[in-house]
Amino acid sequence: MSEAGDGGDASFGARLGRVLSTRGHLCVGIDPHAWLLRDWDLTDSAQGAEAFGRRVVEASAGQVGIVKPQVAFFERFGSAGYAALERVLADARDAGLLVIADVKRGDLGTSAAAYGEAWLTPGSPLEADAMTVNAYMGVGSLEPVLELAATAGKGVFVLAATSNPEGASIQQASVGSAGTRVARAILDDVSRRNQAHETGPLGSFGVVLGATLDLHAYGIDVAAAPAATLTPVLAPGFGHQGANATDVDEIFGGYAAGVIVSESRSVLAAGPERIASAIAHRISQAGAARG
Amino acid sequence: MSEAGDGGDASFGARLGRVLSTRGHLCVGIDPHAWLLRDWDLTDSAQGAEAFGRRVVEASAGQVGIVKPQVAFFERFGSAGYAALERVLADARDAGLLVIADVKRGDLGTSAAAYGEAWLTPGSPLEADAMTVNAYMGVGSLEPVLELAATAGKGVFVLAATSNPEGASIQQASVGSAGTRVARAILDDVSRRNQAHETGPLGSFGVVLGATLDLHAYGIDVAAAPAATLTPVLAPGFGHQGANATDVDEIFGGYAAGVIVSESRSVLAAGPERIASAIAHRISQAGAARG
Repeated sequence: MSEAGDGGDASFGARLGRVLSTRGHLCVGIDPHAWLLRDWDLTDSAQGAEAFGRRVVEASAGQVGIVKPQVAFFERFGSAGYAALERVLADARDAGLLVIADVKRGDLGTSAAAYGEAWLTPGSPLEADAMTVNAYMGVGSLEPVLELAATAGKGVFVLAATSNPEGASIQQASVGSAGTRVARAILDDVSRRNQAHETGPLGSFGVVLGATLDLHAYGIDVAAAPAATLTPVLAPGFGHQGANATDVDEIFGGYAAGVIVSESRSVLAAGPERIASAIAHRISQAGAARG
Repeated sequence: MSEAGDGGDASFGARLGRVLSTRGHLCVGIDPHAWLLRDWDLTDSAQGAEAFGRRVVEASAGQVGIVKPQVAFFERFGSAGYAALERVLADARDAGLLVIADVKRGDLGTSAAAYGEAWLTPGSPLEADAMTVNAYMGVGSLEPVLELAATAGKGVFVLAATSNPEGASIQQASVGSAGTRVARAILDDVSRRNQAHETGPLGSFGVVLGATLDLHAYGIDVAAAPAATLTPVLAPGFGHQGANATDVDEIFGGYAAGVIVSESRSVLAAGPERIASAIAHRISQAGAARG
């Protein structure tokens, strides 16, 4: 299905670093909500989701380096939705975009391995460059996914501190006798794996940290990012959700160089005719602040 | 796709209660591992997974009341795997089996709603009777799934204390100033929702509790099950994983009446010719202890 691109030549972290430095930090979400399909004059169907996704890929190509399909919006159409997603993923690969499959999968043993196989195996119909995962069953339960990723030059983003308020009670809970917050314990675990696996400046194992949170409440001190291999951060919460892409340095401190600024609604709501210029506008806003 | 059966007539909890009392507590997993497909003389492909799943349904029908497909093993084949799963689900519905889709999905807002729509909407190609979910983003983040389930007569099982050792650190972490264990906090939250929604003896919102765990370490006292509407328990860890179906009362105390004894490898490893008798054997073993 895929020619595997440069996936075999470099780690995900190395490829991500190259994309961030040449294309910037913006990642465009591919979220075919029912209401967005309606606004885009598309049917609320697998066909509509496919047309939507392919248009977002087309508008993103050459402007940004990363796209992130929210798989829930394809899954609701069953196998037809997955066939639509496969075509969107193929377009994204052909366009040279880095794809983060936002699937938030989590399981253990052979089931975890099967999820990794689905999304991270070169040549798989659902092949992406990285996937999001959920570590409620322990970061260790995801070992088969992490190993597969390392072998195949792929990436994994583990949910740590998510952007919604309902997540706080579990994610701020205290682990063990040291009382480390759950989100911090996950960040530390992922960071240790990056130090052990990687030699480059950016690791292949990342975390999800919401941009609108008080990260101190999750035990996370962004000034204390590791000096060696940095753990990349997939950061929702920008655009419609309130955070500003110009504030990445302030919000993420020592992690800023590896932050992926994820925006969905803020660009998708522009509609099929204006999405390309909406993306250009978001890029120029972020660029002006940094330049 | 589906005639919705009696889904519209009764809550999931009421249907589950009927199945448990007439068909017993055994639930047969549908886990088309690569190695099981090989042992069954099937190809490691969507076609192989479909043949495997349909045979398991056929062997289960009339013997047990509940089956549980592990969706990871279908997802690894992309859209073809989902098309295979749709046919397995259709067979299970036609056979009158209660289906728990083991998907462990978790997300928030419209994405969570989309996952609920995929698995719990009557007539959806992936329609099941219940799905497993992951509450790392908070039980509240799953509100759209729980609401849809209640409306559609469907069920939801929230991961609380999973059967693997790596899950312990997060699931035993202490929430807030009261220091409630995460798994216990989830059980309490789910239980409150059952008391608020249901009038029957068994709720439609369940939890996953591993059968091989020391539940006290997760803050769970099985003797203190609520007197009113009981929260059902999906319990992995039986059979191959070590727990014995004859020990349900001892392990789950006040929750025993609502426990679903999930077994996969112990019956699937019997192969296509002997699986029906392997299921009959597991039933007779459990029955002898209870009778």
